[in-house]
Amino acid sequence: MKTLADAFEHTLKDVYYAENAISKALPKVIEAVSQGELKVALTAHLAETKEQIKILAKVFKTIGVTASGEKCHAIEGLILETESIISEAKGSIAKNAAVAGACQAIEHYEIARYGTLREWAKTLKNEEAHVLLSEILDMEKAANNKLNAIAINSLNKD
Amino acid sequence: MKTLADAFEHTLKDVYYAENAISKALPKVIEAVSQGELKVALTAHLAETKEQIKILAKVFKTIGVTASGEKCHAIEGLILETESIISEAKGSIAKNAAVAGACQAIEHYEIARYGTLREWAKTLKNEEAHVLLSEILDMEKAANNKLNAIAINSLNKD
Repeated sequence: MKTLADAFEHTLKDVYYAENAISKALPKVIEAVSQGELKVALTAHLAETKEQIKILAKVFKTIGVTASGEKCHAIEGLILETESIISEAKGSIAKNAAVAGACQAIEHYEIARYGTLREWAKTLKNEEAHVLLSEILDMEKAANNKLNAIAINSLNKD
Repeated sequence: MKTLADAFEHTLKDVYYAENAISKALPKVIEAVSQGELKVALTAHLAETKEQIKILAKVFKTIGVTASGEKCHAIEGLILETESIISEAKGSIAKNAAVAGACQAIEHYEIARYGTLREWAKTLKNEEAHVLLSEILDMEKAANNKLNAIAINSLNKD
C-alpha cells in the first residue's frame, strides 16, 4: 500500500469481503430473532446487502480491478460477537434487544468504512465511485436508523 | 443472559474489555502516525480512554458489580485490522489517512455500543448509568468528528 489509490482498493476489498460475510451470516441472525419488525428489517437488509455487493462490483470497475474480497478481521470479529450473543441470549427475553444491538455495531462499522471510502473517492476525483459509495452509505445509515427505532420503540420495552 | 439487565451487564463488560484493549493498542498507533494534528488527536483520545475506564467503573457500581472485562471479539478484530493496516501502510504517503480510517471504525464501534447501553440504562431506570454512559458517548462522537475533520481537511489531501 503506497498511495491513497492503494488504500482505496485495499479498503474496497475489505468491505467487499465484509458484505459477503454479512450476507452469509444474516440468515442465521434472522432465524434467531423472534420479534416481527426486527425480522422484517433484517430480511430487508439481507436483500439490500446483496444489492450492495452488486454496487461494489461497479465501484471495482471504476478502478479497473476485478471485484474480490480480502479477509477483514474487523467484520470477522463483529460477526463472531453477534453469533456468541445469539447463543448466549437463547431463550432470554432480552434476545431481540441484544441481537439488534450487535447488528447495529455491524452497521456502524460499515458506516465508518463507507464514509472513509466515499471521501477517498472524492479526493481521488473518482466521481462515479463517490456517487455509488454514497448510495451504499445512505442505505447503511437508513438500516441503522431503522434498527435504532425498533430497539427504542419496541425491543427495549418488551 | 436471561434479562435486559443481564444483557446490560454483559455488554458493559464487553466495552470495559474494549476500552482497556484500546488503551493498550493506542500508543503503537500514535507512534505509527506522522501527521501532527492526528498524533495530537489520538494522544488526547488515549487520555480520554483512560478517563472512560474510570467512568465505566462508576457504571459497574450502579449495578453492584465489580468492574471487569469479558473478551470482546469485535474489538479484537478491529484492533487486529488497525495493526495490519499500520504494517501494510508503512512508508506509504496514505499511511495517516489509512490509519485514521481504521481508528474511525473503532470509534464507530464504540458509538454503537454506548448508544445501545445508554438506551438500555434508561429502560432499566438506571438514571445514573444513563448519564455516565451518555457522557462517554458524547466523548466518542466528538473524537470521531475530530478524526473526520482531520481526515477531510488534511490527511486525504496530503
